[in-house]
Amino acid sequence: MKNLNDKLKYIKLVVLDFDGVFTDGGIYMDPKSQGFRRFDVKDGLGIKLLQKNNFKVAIVSGSNSKIIDKRAEALGIKIVKKGISNKLEILKEIQDDLKIKKEETIFLGDDINDLTVLPNISLFIAPSDAHIGCKTKASYISKSRGGMGFIREIVDDLLISKNVDPYLPFETKND
Amino acid sequence: MKNLNDKLKYIKLVVLDFDGVFTDGGIYMDPKSQGFRRFDVKDGLGIKLLQKNNFKVAIVSGSNSKIIDKRAEALGIKIVKKGISNKLEILKEIQDDLKIKKEETIFLGDDINDLTVLPNISLFIAPSDAHIGCKTKASYISKSRGGMGFIREIVDDLLISKNVDPYLPFETKND
Amino acid sequence: MKNLNDKLKYIKLVVLDFDGVFTDGGIYMDPKSQGFRRFDVKDGLGIKLLQKNNFKVAIVSGSNSKIIDKRAEALGIKIVKKGISNKLEILKEIQDDLKIKKEETIFLGDDINDLTVLPNISLFIAPSDAHIGCKTKASYISKSRGGMGFIREIVDDLLISKNVDPYLPFETKND
Amino acid sequence: MKNLNDKLKYIKLVVLDFDGVFTDGGIYMDPKSQGFRRFDVKDGLGIKLLQKNNFKVAIVSGSNSKIIDKRAEALGIKIVKKGISNKLEILKEIQDDLKIKKEETIFLGDDINDLTVLPNISLFIAPSDAHIGCKTKASYISKSRGGMGFIREIVDDLLISKNVDPYLPFETKND
Repeated sequence: MKNLNDKLKYIKLVVLDFDGVFTDGGIYMDPKSQGFRRFDVKDGLGIKLLQKNNFKVAIVSGSNSKIIDKRAEALGIKIVKKGISNKLEILKEIQDDLKIKKEETIFLGDDINDLTVLPNISLFIAPSDAHIGCKTKASYISKSRGGMGFIREIVDDLLISKNVDPYLPFETKND
Repeated sequence: MKNLNDKLKYIKLVVLDFDGVFTDGGIYMDPKSQGFRRFDVKDGLGIKLLQKNNFKVAIVSGSNSKIIDKRAEALGIKIVKKGISNKLEILKEIQDDLKIKKEETIFLGDDINDLTVLPNISLFIAPSDAHIGCKTKASYISKSRGGMGFIREIVDDLLISKNVDPYLPFETKND
Repeated sequence: MKNLNDKLKYIKLVVLDFDGVFTDGGIYMDPKSQGFRRFDVKDGLGIKLLQKNNFKVAIVSGSNSKIIDKRAEALGIKIVKKGISNKLEILKEIQDDLKIKKEETIFLGDDINDLTVLPNISLFIAPSDAHIGCKTKASYISKSRGGMGFIREIVDDLLISKNVDPYLPFETKND
Repeated sequence: MKNLNDKLKYIKLVVLDFDGVFTDGGIYMDPKSQGFRRFDVKDGLGIKLLQKNNFKVAIVSGSNSKIIDKRAEALGIKIVKKGISNKLEILKEIQDDLKIKKEETIFLGDDINDLTVLPNISLFIAPSDAHIGCKTKASYISKSRGGMGFIREIVDDLLISKNVDPYLPFETKND
């Protein structure tokens, strides 16, 4: 945990997988639906806290669903990469564009298709219900499940590492 | 708990946050949806018990979703304030309109954007899955999770504090 | 439990509440929806086992939702009473129509608005997540939660009480 | 477990029930819906790992829902048998078509209508939340619940039995 906090305080860029991170990994479909996802209102407030504290936020997903754009827009996330097989390559592009270093990058992912980013990040955080192959290689495993406060828990850790109190009353509208 | 029961018996106005209180904090969306929420039928019966026993009921939410109006209408809740950043200000307006005092007001909330109301209420109750920043400052933390019987549990406590038995057979239609 | 099994073997009519019994008590809505419910495929197979073994099955609900008719039709349940405040009265009508006695009637319910039927049934069974007021007065509390195998668990108990093995391979189509 | 691993290494054909295996057994419906199901993104990745490693994959379901075809198509599953009462008969047809033997066939099922296949398979695997009648006769009961990583857990076991590491980074798009 000491190592974790040492690394957290240098983070400037938070990169998030979509399914299993913003959601609980569930895809709800009927024959006509493009696929409902379940988001968590507390995770949404977490993204707002990141933005208020000047973190860069990006989504990198293997999925190509339009719901990713819709959720990103609702939360004001501008960097959205969809349908990505090679997540390492696209991560490097994002880092180059933003002039962000490996030491300043954290990745939140839940499955083995996220692990390709490992060489170019400082911390890989997995939710408690991540795939075992992902948890084995993670820097840290959260107490929360994906889509159930996982993002918020890590946001709180990031803020604390920078001496920002994440428990203060916060005036905001929900999404 | 003694303190809690002492305060419960003076309550006349129950103010509720929406997401995470009426719901489990989940927002279900597809690219076309305005966002489904999951409500609990037992919480609905709790609202009816409040009304039958002459409590005033109000919703104060940071969200601006139309589903809030729909659920409020189904449950006969007349005071609905949406898209609210500063919940303290709007709470005072409600209290003034109804001529209800601080000592007569209870608030049910689950996140740090609810904490602004603390100066003007008697009791702040958080569900067991509330954000940690919210639980730390709550008067009491329920056994139930938000959207999973949380409202009903607190309604039962309110009725018991006024010597009304909340376990008696109750003839009513569901919503 | 001896008493329970003694009574189970005389049961001919199974009366079920809808929300919290066929479902987990959740009502999923967006501004346009009439309210989605979540059913359990194993409970559906339970209803088929009841029918195959010549039990009478009826739904008595306080709700007036069209989804009750739809689910009942899919499962071949013919006796469906909706929007009922006084469940005792309607239960007596059903019993009269079918010439079924109190000793032959079991009721599955999860909240205090189901308790009015108590004078005219042999057994009242509540799911493990029923309201406390309902559990206190129940003949038996199931291991399963409502909408998560509760109906099936009680069906299995009913079959066993009549020396039918509910664990045998069963050829059927799902609904 | 030794016996299980001995048998796993001969498997070439994975046959899956649908409801309770690809899903958690929930059927979400409103009066107009054909029935939403909840799928798990990690199970989807499991199907892709099976295909990459040249397993044959088939769905055999008692349900006739169109959502089965939709999910199968998204995952590239070609053998889909719907509305099946007698699962043993259709299993034999699949085995004949593919020239796959009993010893090479595994079945994933969660209820007693799946048990008819027992005479013609090597292994019957049930999720931890399967019906008790199904668990009693299963070769093995998974740690995961149906629709919550159950398929993926068994895929990992299959790969390990063939000395393939299922925990390596894997470049793929999600579905």
